[in-house]
Amino acid sequence: MSTPPTELIAVAWDGDAVTYLDQRRLPHEVRHERARTVEEIEAAIKTLAVRGAPAIGVFGAYGVALLRDAIADDEHFALAARRVRDARPTAVNLAWAVDRVLAAEDMLAEAQAIHREQISMDKAMSEAGLALIPKNARILTHCNTGPIATAGGGTALGVIVAAQRAGKKPHVFVDETRPLLQGARLTYFELRQAGVDATLQVDGAAAIAMQRKQIDLVIVGADRIARNGDTANKIGTYGLAVLAAHHGIPFYVAAPRSTFDFSMRSGDEIHIEERAPEEVTAFGGTPVAPPDAKVYNPAFDVTPGHLVTAFVTEYGVIEPPYPETIPSLELRPRFGVLT
Amino acid sequence: MSTPPTELIAVAWDGDAVTYLDQRRLPHEVRHERARTVEEIEAAIKTLAVRGAPAIGVFGAYGVALLRDAIADDEHFALAARRVRDARPTAVNLAWAVDRVLAAEDMLAEAQAIHREQISMDKAMSEAGLALIPKNARILTHCNTGPIATAGGGTALGVIVAAQRAGKKPHVFVDETRPLLQGARLTYFELRQAGVDATLQVDGAAAIAMQRKQIDLVIVGADRIARNGDTANKIGTYGLAVLAAHHGIPFYVAAPRSTFDFSMRSGDEIHIEERAPEEVTAFGGTPVAPPDAKVYNPAFDVTPGHLVTAFVTEYGVIEPPYPETIPSLELRPRFGVLT
Repeated sequence: MSTPPTELIAVAWDGDAVTYLDQRRLPHEVRHERARTVEEIEAAIKTLAVRGAPAIGVFGAYGVALLRDAIADDEHFALAARRVRDARPTAVNLAWAVDRVLAAEDMLAEAQAIHREQISMDKAMSEAGLALIPKNARILTHCNTGPIATAGGGTALGVIVAAQRAGKKPHVFVDETRPLLQGARLTYFELRQAGVDATLQVDGAAAIAMQRKQIDLVIVGADRIARNGDTANKIGTYGLAVLAAHHGIPFYVAAPRSTFDFSMRSGDEIHIEERAPEEVTAFGGTPVAPPDAKVYNPAFDVTPGHLVTAFVTEYGVIEPPYPETIPSLELRPRFGVLT
Repeated sequence: MSTPPTELIAVAWDGDAVTYLDQRRLPHEVRHERARTVEEIEAAIKTLAVRGAPAIGVFGAYGVALLRDAIADDEHFALAARRVRDARPTAVNLAWAVDRVLAAEDMLAEAQAIHREQISMDKAMSEAGLALIPKNARILTHCNTGPIATAGGGTALGVIVAAQRAGKKPHVFVDETRPLLQGARLTYFELRQAGVDATLQVDGAAAIAMQRKQIDLVIVGADRIARNGDTANKIGTYGLAVLAAHHGIPFYVAAPRSTFDFSMRSGDEIHIEERAPEEVTAFGGTPVAPPDAKVYNPAFDVTPGHLVTAFVTEYGVIEPPYPETIPSLELRPRFGVLT
């Protein structure tokens, strides 16, 4: 995979700090920040300045390696690492990457390995997904799954960009993805950077788009996938999967092996994070509802595995029956695609 | 029906102008404006300062009566009336109300009759719908269908408020309704005014709410209904109907006889208005996507009749098979409930 343009590099190690693209400022401002303390690292994750499960994993890995150098006292360091690990409860990559770094002799080298593996993995995933994308495909996607979400080439968006590079000329309908508008702010921006033809729409327009705009497929990313294929992803994903099934449209989930949580038998075990009401009662700083309104603001929903046509992973496309095919993925190395 | 609080009066005749509640300013500011010229009347409709199909009908009726007094020249007046009639192409009530006023001897008396009939009709509708609402019902709704949308007691929200007054203690999940946020700005506000317990959510959270929040029913309004039950309503409605069917939840549409367009055999004939891209790319003056983004922004979608469990009208509840039951509604007087 060619390196993404500088402005799309989500996370990097600069020698004595973790730098990150502040995704909250996109698409208006492309600004990189540096995190050096546990407070800065935790805040960057909690405020969604860094977001996307794989990017959070890479960021957390560098963060813990950095803190190991900065904090001599073992007990203090353990507490700091725990704060980083717990900053986002739903993203499985974060806890996993932090644990992996903690178990390593050379923590910085381990964090860098995680980052390199991420890039390699995304490339393998996008190549595996290519076969699912017809020429001139009309694709619907939700939330953000591109380079800035993974610190690599992206998951669902990586597949789309690979299709574009292969000359398939996809056209992408991008859900704006309320409440945080990752589709409008990030995905549309990334698609444009990659030269992919795209149309933005409100989330509520997905059904009519499927009915009237000849959508060929839906492809999204994931935050956590259980053994039976139940998939936690950005709020709105489950509704899209139901709509896709209703319209006979394939619904694909692109996610690496590391997003599969083999310890979970079904999505019933996935904890759904509820976020602050202000994300819904205000819009870009402008209040749109009474500030004391009662709000239901789940960050994720869980799509039952039976609504997922196939998973795209770095080990190829995985099809039903998931209770049989997903556990076989567990036997493959977590980052086996690295050469 | 008791009169709604003054601040919820959408449209009124004040002796020499049509006054209206500027719905774009809600819920932050309750401000009434006066329209006296064709430009002011047309702008109030086009900018959605006055919205909701029945409220637009009442507003247009008063507007045309006002213009008849103001414009002596018959040809000029006819052109002005046409501008009012065409200000919103999807709302069937507007053209119908304007035509009715134009055919009357005393245009102002006719506009006032339309307004009184609207209030009476909403009351009959909410009483008919009451039987569909169980005690402690958990209800999901979309867009705005209350007093300020109808200039009466409301359609779907009228039913909910009637249930509250009957001691049924409904709890309402309110979709924010992008792009114009009528749910967040108007419906939540109206429910609070009426003392109804309500929770606000993004449109993308409707699926998980149906899955996990024990929703008993969905009830929405309509802008136009064809003979077979195909229903044009705010963008996002069709998706909700598919989701409700998937979860085995009844999906009701509350609308008066005047919203049924008996000349249309199916929803295929309904024109879908596409609105400005800025509604999606910016919010409250704050850009959220590149200003030149390509946008798909249909104002409405069409829900196939087979997904509608029943219609609530001022003549009672109408059930399938719609190609038989809806045409029988045509035989009833357009405003037959008036005493």
